[in-house]
Amino acid sequence: MKTAQQYEESLRKLNLKVYLQGELVKSPVDNPIIRPSMNSVKMTYELAQDPQYEELMTATSHLTGKKINRFCHLHQSADDLVKKVKMQRLLGQKTAACFQRCVGMDAINAVDSTTFEMDQKLGTDYHARFTKFLLKMQEEDWTVDGAMTDPKGDRGLSPSKQVDPDLFVHVVEKRADGIVVSGAKAHQTGAINSHWILVMPTISMAKEDADYAVSFSAPADAEGIFYIYGRQSCDTRKLEGGDIDVGNKQFGGHEALMVFDNVFIPWENVFMCGEYEFSGMLVERFAGYHRQSYGGCKVGVGDVLIGATALAADYNGAAKASHVKDKLIEMMHLNETLYACGIACSAEGHKTASGNYIIDLLLANVCKQNVTRFPYEIARLAEDIAGGLMVTMPSEKDLRHPEIGKVVEKYFRGVAAVSTENRMRILRLIENITLGTAAVGYRTESMHGAGSPQAQRIMIARQGNLENKKALAKAIAGIEQK
Amino acid sequence: MKTAQQYEESLRKLNLKVYLQGELVKSPVDNPIIRPSMNSVKMTYELAQDPQYEELMTATSHLTGKKINRFCHLHQSADDLVKKVKMQRLLGQKTAACFQRCVGMDAINAVDSTTFEMDQKLGTDYHARFTKFLLKMQEEDWTVDGAMTDPKGDRGLSPSKQVDPDLFVHVVEKRADGIVVSGAKAHQTGAINSHWILVMPTISMAKEDADYAVSFSAPADAEGIFYIYGRQSCDTRKLEGGDIDVGNKQFGGHEALMVFDNVFIPWENVFMCGEYEFSGMLVERFAGYHRQSYGGCKVGVGDVLIGATALAADYNGAAKASHVKDKLIEMMHLNETLYACGIACSAEGHKTASGNYIIDLLLANVCKQNVTRFPYEIARLAEDIAGGLMVTMPSEKDLRHPEIGKVVEKYFRGVAAVSTENRMRILRLIENITLGTAAVGYRTESMHGAGSPQAQRIMIARQGNLENKKALAKAIAGIEQK
Amino acid sequence: MKTAQQYEESLRKLNLKVYLQGELVKSPVDNPIIRPSMNSVKMTYELAQDPQYEELMTATSHLTGKKINRFCHLHQSADDLVKKVKMQRLLGQKTAACFQRCVGMDAINAVDSTTFEMDQKLGTDYHARFTKFLLKMQEEDWTVDGAMTDPKGDRGLSPSKQVDPDLFVHVVEKRADGIVVSGAKAHQTGAINSHWILVMPTISMAKEDADYAVSFSAPADAEGIFYIYGRQSCDTRKLEGGDIDVGNKQFGGHEALMVFDNVFIPWENVFMCGEYEFSGMLVERFAGYHRQSYGGCKVGVGDVLIGATALAADYNGAAKASHVKDKLIEMMHLNETLYACGIACSAEGHKTASGNYIIDLLLANVCKQNVTRFPYEIARLAEDIAGGLMVTMPSEKDLRHPEIGKVVEKYFRGVAAVSTENRMRILRLIENITLGTAAVGYRTESMHGAGSPQAQRIMIARQGNLENKKALAKAIAGIEQK
Amino acid sequence: MKTAQQYEESLRKLNLKVYLQGELVKSPVDNPIIRPSMNSVKMTYELAQDPQYEELMTATSHLTGKKINRFCHLHQSADDLVKKVKMQRLLGQKTAACFQRCVGMDAINAVDSTTFEMDQKLGTDYHARFTKFLLKMQEEDWTVDGAMTDPKGDRGLSPSKQVDPDLFVHVVEKRADGIVVSGAKAHQTGAINSHWILVMPTISMAKEDADYAVSFSAPADAEGIFYIYGRQSCDTRKLEGGDIDVGNKQFGGHEALMVFDNVFIPWENVFMCGEYEFSGMLVERFAGYHRQSYGGCKVGVGDVLIGATALAADYNGAAKASHVKDKLIEMMHLNETLYACGIACSAEGHKTASGNYIIDLLLANVCKQNVTRFPYEIARLAEDIAGGLMVTMPSEKDLRHPEIGKVVEKYFRGVAAVSTENRMRILRLIENITLGTAAVGYRTESMHGAGSPQAQRIMIARQGNLENKKALAKAIAGIEQK
Repeated sequence: MKTAQQYEESLRKLNLKVYLQGELVKSPVDNPIIRPSMNSVKMTYELAQDPQYEELMTATSHLTGKKINRFCHLHQSADDLVKKVKMQRLLGQKTAACFQRCVGMDAINAVDSTTFEMDQKLGTDYHARFTKFLLKMQEEDWTVDGAMTDPKGDRGLSPSKQVDPDLFVHVVEKRADGIVVSGAKAHQTGAINSHWILVMPTISMAKEDADYAVSFSAPADAEGIFYIYGRQSCDTRKLEGGDIDVGNKQFGGHEALMVFDNVFIPWENVFMCGEYEFSGMLVERFAGYHRQSYGGCKVGVGDVLIGATALAADYNGAAKASHVKDKLIEMMHLNETLYACGIACSAEGHKTASGNYIIDLLLANVCKQNVTRFPYEIARLAEDIAGGLMVTMPSEKDLRHPEIGKVVEKYFRGVAAVSTENRMRILRLIENITLGTAAVGYRTESMHGAGSPQAQRIMIARQGNLENKKALAKAIAGIEQK
Repeated sequence: MKTAQQYEESLRKLNLKVYLQGELVKSPVDNPIIRPSMNSVKMTYELAQDPQYEELMTATSHLTGKKINRFCHLHQSADDLVKKVKMQRLLGQKTAACFQRCVGMDAINAVDSTTFEMDQKLGTDYHARFTKFLLKMQEEDWTVDGAMTDPKGDRGLSPSKQVDPDLFVHVVEKRADGIVVSGAKAHQTGAINSHWILVMPTISMAKEDADYAVSFSAPADAEGIFYIYGRQSCDTRKLEGGDIDVGNKQFGGHEALMVFDNVFIPWENVFMCGEYEFSGMLVERFAGYHRQSYGGCKVGVGDVLIGATALAADYNGAAKASHVKDKLIEMMHLNETLYACGIACSAEGHKTASGNYIIDLLLANVCKQNVTRFPYEIARLAEDIAGGLMVTMPSEKDLRHPEIGKVVEKYFRGVAAVSTENRMRILRLIENITLGTAAVGYRTESMHGAGSPQAQRIMIARQGNLENKKALAKAIAGIEQK
Repeated sequence: MKTAQQYEESLRKLNLKVYLQGELVKSPVDNPIIRPSMNSVKMTYELAQDPQYEELMTATSHLTGKKINRFCHLHQSADDLVKKVKMQRLLGQKTAACFQRCVGMDAINAVDSTTFEMDQKLGTDYHARFTKFLLKMQEEDWTVDGAMTDPKGDRGLSPSKQVDPDLFVHVVEKRADGIVVSGAKAHQTGAINSHWILVMPTISMAKEDADYAVSFSAPADAEGIFYIYGRQSCDTRKLEGGDIDVGNKQFGGHEALMVFDNVFIPWENVFMCGEYEFSGMLVERFAGYHRQSYGGCKVGVGDVLIGATALAADYNGAAKASHVKDKLIEMMHLNETLYACGIACSAEGHKTASGNYIIDLLLANVCKQNVTRFPYEIARLAEDIAGGLMVTMPSEKDLRHPEIGKVVEKYFRGVAAVSTENRMRILRLIENITLGTAAVGYRTESMHGAGSPQAQRIMIARQGNLENKKALAKAIAGIEQK
Repeated sequence: MKTAQQYEESLRKLNLKVYLQGELVKSPVDNPIIRPSMNSVKMTYELAQDPQYEELMTATSHLTGKKINRFCHLHQSADDLVKKVKMQRLLGQKTAACFQRCVGMDAINAVDSTTFEMDQKLGTDYHARFTKFLLKMQEEDWTVDGAMTDPKGDRGLSPSKQVDPDLFVHVVEKRADGIVVSGAKAHQTGAINSHWILVMPTISMAKEDADYAVSFSAPADAEGIFYIYGRQSCDTRKLEGGDIDVGNKQFGGHEALMVFDNVFIPWENVFMCGEYEFSGMLVERFAGYHRQSYGGCKVGVGDVLIGATALAADYNGAAKASHVKDKLIEMMHLNETLYACGIACSAEGHKTASGNYIIDLLLANVCKQNVTRFPYEIARLAEDIAGGLMVTMPSEKDLRHPEIGKVVEKYFRGVAAVSTENRMRILRLIENITLGTAAVGYRTESMHGAGSPQAQRIMIARQGNLENKKALAKAIAGIEQK
C-alpha cells in the first residue's frame, strides 16, 4: 500500500492535461484550488496506515491474500459491505468533504460481477481481462476514477439520436489491437486525483445504441484525454491566502469534464464493447453500490456539520434553549436515519455469481432517496442555529486589519470565553458546507450523485414488488379474484 | 412448541377476569370483539409449524438446545436480531394487525441482561430466578405479556408524589414468602391472549420511589388480577355479523388495563424489588428492543396497506396515472426506510454481559422515531388514492339488501372487470387500517407504543455523542480551544 | 329567515326516501345516526338569529334588498368573500363538524356567473330561470345541496364510454315540458338535510358527452329521487345511548348517494342542457368557491382540535413540557396558514360578468392543496399529545359500571383536579376528529372534498403562469433568445 | 420623487466610511462588489417613475397630499398594506435579490404608532419629532435604513449584563442638546445604500436596560458612524469581469455592521430614550411589518427561481417528464402559499391609534414562519431539476477560451436549439440564488431576517389564543369545569 506521501508523488508523475478557469494547469497537485481535493483522497492513504483504523481501511485481497486498501477491494462478505460504509463515514468525518475514491471501488465491484455474467451468457472473456486490471490496481494501490455519467445533451433523446454523436462516449473505430473511443464523461468526481479511469456506459442501451455500450480502463493521462475543471461556489476564496474564510482549509472535492478525443484502448483494457443488453446491469449495479456509499460519506460530513452547529450554539450562548437542543436532536435523527439505510442495504447484501457481494438494491435506492432530502433539512437547521452572522460577517482580512480588526473582535464576539476568531471559524465552516465549496458535495452531490432522485424512484418501483403486496391485501380482505 | 389449536385451547383453560363495555366476559376466546386479536397471536403459533417459515419463526434455545418459537428466544447473535425483525414483518403481512406477542419477547431479553448485571453489581440472585421462569416459558411455549406502562396519573409528578399511590405498580408488603403488589398497567397489548405476565417498572426511579422499582412474573389469571378491555374505533362492527365492513374480518389487536389488587408474588417470581438504580436500565433496554420491533411489524402492516391502495387504484381505473404511481413509490420508500432502520439497529447489535444480544440503542431509537411519522404519511397517501368513497360507501347490509343491493352494485362499481363487493372489501380494509380498529395499531401504537416520540428524542440526545461531533468540527475548522 | 326550529320542522315535512344500513329510514330528522348532522345545519339557522354574529351570518340580498342568511347570498364584494370564510370558521368552531350548507352557497355562486356567460355567448335564457330559483331559495331560506360528483365508474373512461351509461347523471329524454334524467350523485354532503338540490356536471365535457352536460334544480324529495346513507367510522356509537364515547354528541356530518331514477325536471328548473363547452367553467368555479370554503370550515374544526389537545395536555399534567408547547404552536401555525390562504383568495376576489364576486382561482387551489396536507399533520400532533389512552380507554359503560366504574375513575385520572370523566370526554373528542365520525370530515373530506389533490395541482399548473416566470428569469440572466 | 439617476447621484454625495475585505472603500457606488446592491435599491426609484407601476409603487402622503414613493408612506388602509406586498413581489421579480428599502418603510410605520402611543401614555413629544423626520424623508425621497438588530454577544445575557456594554446600542451621555450613543447594529441590510438611518431597540427591555431603550434617526454619514461590509458566498466573482458566472450581473443585496463610536444625536432626532416599557411594542410592530414584507419580496425572487428552473428543464429536454412538471407545480404551490400569507395578514390589517395601518400580527408571524421553510424546499427542488451541472460546469473563462471554448460549447449543450451559453446563464442564475450571493437573501435572510424562526413561534403562541380554543373544545365535549 502506498503511503500518503507516495500517493502525492505518484500524482506528480502523471502528465494530466487540465484546464481550470481558462488556463492549462501546470501542477494540479500544487494548484491551490485543486489541492484540497487531493488532500481528501490522500487521507484515504493516510488512514490506511493508521493501526487504529486498520480494520475499516484495509482488507485482504481475494486475489493475492495480501493486505490492500479497502478502496481496491472486491467485497467478499456482507460484513465487507458494512465496513465499507463505516470507512466512508470515518473519512467524511475526517475531511468534511467528498474524498472521491469511492467511485473506483464501486466501479470495480460492479464491473467484476457484470463481466462475469456477461462471459457466462455470451462466451466472452472480459472477466479475465478485468481481473488482470484489478490485480494491477491492488498492487499499485491506484485511485481509479469510475467514470459513468455522459453529458447526455437532449434528455429526451437516446445516445444514437443526439444531434452530436459524441454526447455519449462511443466506439468510433474497432481495430485488431483495440478500439478508438470519443466523447466525454461529465461530473467526474476526483478525476484529477486519479491514476486510472474505469469507463462504464451511463444508461441501459438498446440495440441501435450498441456502439455506446462500452466499458474500458485507461491511464488518466492517456493520449487524447484531457479535463476541464468544474467551478464551485466560493472556489476562489482558496486563492485569498487566509485560512478562515475558506471554512475548510485543508479538504475539498472536485468534479471535472473528462474528454476523450479519439483515444486508443488496447483490447486487454476493454470490458464491454457492444453488448448493449448488459449495459443496464452494469449501470444498476454501479449505481446501487454508489447509492450505498452515500449512506456513509454524507453521514460523516453530517457529523461535522452537526458538531459545528452545536459549537455555534455554544459560542453564542444559546446552547441551553430547548428549541436549539431539539433541532440538534432532529439533525442527529436525520443523519442516523441515512446511516441506518447505508448499514441495512449492506447487511442485507448477497453474493453475486462472480463471488463478490452486492448490496440489497431496494434498500440502497431507498438510502440514496433519503440522501436527496435529509442533508437539505440538516443544512436548513444548521443555518437556523448558526444565525445570520454566517453570511453577514466581515472577511478574514477585516479581522486581521490593524485598525478595524479590533472592532471586528469586539462586535462579533459571542460568549466571552470564546475568541471571535474561533466563532468566525466555526461559522465559516457551516457556510462552507451549506453554501460554499463543500455544499457542492453535501447538497448537489447528495441530490445528483449516483443518480438523480427520479432514478431511485424508478428502481424502487421496480424492486418494491407491488404485486406481492396486492396479494397480501387480497388475502386479508377476503378477495379471491385474480 | 404448541400448535395453533393447542394455543387456543390453553387460553380457554385460563380463568381470566375481563370487563368489556360494562360486562364481565364469559369466554374471551369466543368473544367476537376479542377473538380477532386472539387470531393474530395464534398466527405466531401457526406459522412456527410451517416449514417454509422455520428459519424466521423458530430458534434453538440456548438453555436446552431444543427448537423453540422465536418469541420465547433470547437473541444469541446479531443475526437473531435481524431474523426477529423479518419475522415481525412477515406476521404484519399475514395479519395486517398487531400480533401482540413481541412484548414478551422484548421483555425477556431486557430482563435477562438487566438481572445479570444487577446480580453482578449487587450480589442478588435475580438472574437464576428469571432463567427458571424462562425455561418454563420456552417449554410451555407461553405467550407472555411484557407489562411496562403504568397509568402515571399526573405526568408532572414522580410515582411516590402522586395523590393516589397506586398510579404506579408498587410493593405494598414484603413477606417471607414473597411480595404483595398493587396498582395497574395500562395499554397492555395482548394481555387477554397471554398465559403469563412479566412486569417491569415504567421509568427510571430515584431512591424515594424504591417501592416502585419492581419486576416480577405472574400467571395472567393470578388471584387479584383483572382486566378492563380498551375500546377501539369501529370495534362494534365486529358484532354486526357481516364480513366486509369490518375491513379485516380475521385479525386485530387489543389493549387493556391490567389491575393488581393486592396480588401475591412468591419470591421465585420476583426479578427486581427496590433496586431503583437498575430500573432505568431495564426500561431503556426493553424500550430499545421494542423500538426495534416496530421496524418489522409496522412495515408488514404497511405492505398490506400499500397493496390495498394499489388495488384500490386498479379497481377504479386510475393505476396508470403518473401521480398515483408516484404516490405508491413514496409509500414504499417510506415503508422500506422504516425497515432499513429495523435491520440496521439489529445488524449493529452487540453482546451483553449475560450473553444475549442487544440492538444498537441509538439506531433503535431512530427507528422508532421514524415510525412515529411515516405510517401517518403512508396512511395519508392511502387515503388520497383510495378516494372519498372509503368513508361515504353504504354498509354491507345495503349491498346485501334485496332491492337496494342492485343500486349499490351498479353505482359503486369501478372498472367493469371487478365486482363492487371486492371494491368495497379493499376500501374497507384501507378504512380499517387508517381509521378503524387497526388504526389503533398502525397509527396510535406507532406513535406511543414503546414510548412516545419525545422519549426517543431524549435517547437520541443521549446516544448521539454530540461532544465527539464537536471535536470533529474543531479539527476541520482549525480550532484548538477546548 | 327561518329559525332553527322552523328549519327542523320544514325538514319533517319532506318526504325523503333514505336507506341506512339496509333499512328505509322513517324520520331522518329523528334518526340517531343522522340527527347530529341535521344539528350542524341547524346551527347555520340558529347563529343567523344571534345579533352578535349578524354581520357574518347574514347579508343583504342583491335581488330583494332583504336580510338573508349568507348561505343564500351571491357574493357582492371581496369583503363578502372574506366574510364567508369567517362565517365558516365560526361554524366549524361551534360544531367541530361539517355543517354541509356550503355546497349550496358555492353552487349558486358558480351557476349564476356561468349561466350568465353562457346566455351571453349562446343566446340561451338560463340565467333568468336560475334567478327565479335563487329568489325562491332566499325567500324560503332553503338549504340546498349543490350536487356535483358522479360515481364515475372507471376513472380511465369518459362519461359516454362507461359500460353503464348511468355512472354519470345524464338526460335520458327531452320533452316539451322538461327533461328526464337518470344516474346518481355520490358523496352528497348534507343531502338528507336539504330542501332542494342543485345539480351540476362533474367534469369538463367533450361533444360526445353532451347529454351529460346538464344542470338543474329539484326538490330533494322529487319523484324518482332516493338516497343511500354512507356509513362512517364509529357511526353506531350514536346508538349506544351514552354521551362520552361519541366524542361529539351533538354535531356531525354525512354523505349519501343520491339516485335519480328517471326524474322529470321542468324546463324552468334546467340551467344547462347539452352546452358541454360550459361544463368546464361551471366545474372550475364551483370547485374554486368550495376550495376557498375549506380555508374556513376546516380551520374552525382545527381550532376545536387544538383546544382539545391543549386540554388533554393540561389534564395529564404535561402542559409545561417544552415539546408539548412547541407542538401546540406548530398546530396553530399550520391551522392559521390554512386560514391565511382562505382569506387571501377571498381578498383577491374579483367581479364576474354577472356581477357576483369570485375568488382568486390560483390562491383558492393553493388553499385547498394545503388542506389536503395540514389537517393530517395537525391530527398527528394531536394524537402525539393526547397519548395512547385515547384508543385504549374503556367504554363509557365501564365508567358507569357500579363496581368497575371506581377502578376506571381511579386509574384513568390525570391531574388530581380534573375528573376522569372530563379527561375521557376530551380524549374521545380527539378520537372523534382524528379516527371517528368527524375524521370523515376533518381528514377524508379535507383530502377529497372539492376535488382530490391532483385536481388542484392541475389548476395550479394552469393558473401559475410559468411562461411569465421564465421571462423574468431570462431578463435577469441576460438571455434574449425566445 | 427622485429619479433613479438622482438617487445614484445623491449617494455619491454621502461621505460614508465603509470597510470591505480589509480596505476602506473609495466610492461605494462604483465598487463592483457593492454596486449590484445599489442597483436593486435604484430599481425602487426607477419603477416609481414608470406609469404602469404607479399604483403599486407610489402613494399619496397623508401629511402633504403629494405623490410619494410607497417606501416613504405610512399605510393608510388595509389596501395600502396589500399594495405594499404586491410592490415587493414586483421588485423581487425585477431584481431576483433583496432590494433593501423595506426596512425603512417598516421602521417608519412601527415608530409612528409606537411614539404616538408612548406620548399618549407618558406625555412625551416623540411623535411630533418623528413626524418632522418623516416629512423630510418623504420630501427628499430618502432610502432609510431601519436599524434594529444589535450584535447581542452572549445570547444568554441581557444588554446590561454583557461583559462589553457596547454589544447593544446605548446612550452613553445625555446632554442638553442631545444624546451620545455607542454600540453597533449588525446585519444592516442596505446600509451602504441609505441616506439616513432610523435606529430602534432590538428586544423588549427591562428597567435595568433603560439606557438601551433608545430610538433615533441620523444621517448615514454622521460623525462617528462607520461600516464593515459583510462578505457573501461567491462575492468575488463580481471582480472577475465576466457576466455569466455571477449569475445575476445587475442586482444583489448586502448586509453590513454599522458602528456607532460616540455619535451625537440632537434631541429633535431622538424618538425613544429610556422608555424601556415601549421597546417591546416597537420591536413587535417593526418585526410584524417586516415579517409581512417577506410574503412579498421572497415570493418575487421565488418567481424568478421557478422560471429559471423551468428553463433549465426546457434546455436539457426534460420539461415533459411528469416528475419535472410535478416539481414545478410544487414550487409554485409553496411560493403562492407564502404570497397568500402576505396578502392575508395585510387584508386583515387594522388602524392603530396614530392612524396608520398595521398588519394582523398572528398572520404576519405565520407568514414569516413559512418563509423560514418553503424557500429552502423550493431551492431544493430547483437543484433537483437543474441537475449537477450547475456546480460542475466550467467557468465563463473556459467558455471564452479560444481552444477549450469549443469543447465547452460541444459538451454542455442540452437541446440543440439553445446555445450552451444560455444554458450556462440559467444554471448560474439558479446557483446564484441557491448557493451564491443571492442565497444570502433567499435562504439566510428568509430564515433570520425580521427575526429567527423561534421568535415567530413565541409570537404565534402569544397571539394564537389557546384559551379560547380550549373553551370551544369544552363546549363540544360537554365539559363544564373551568
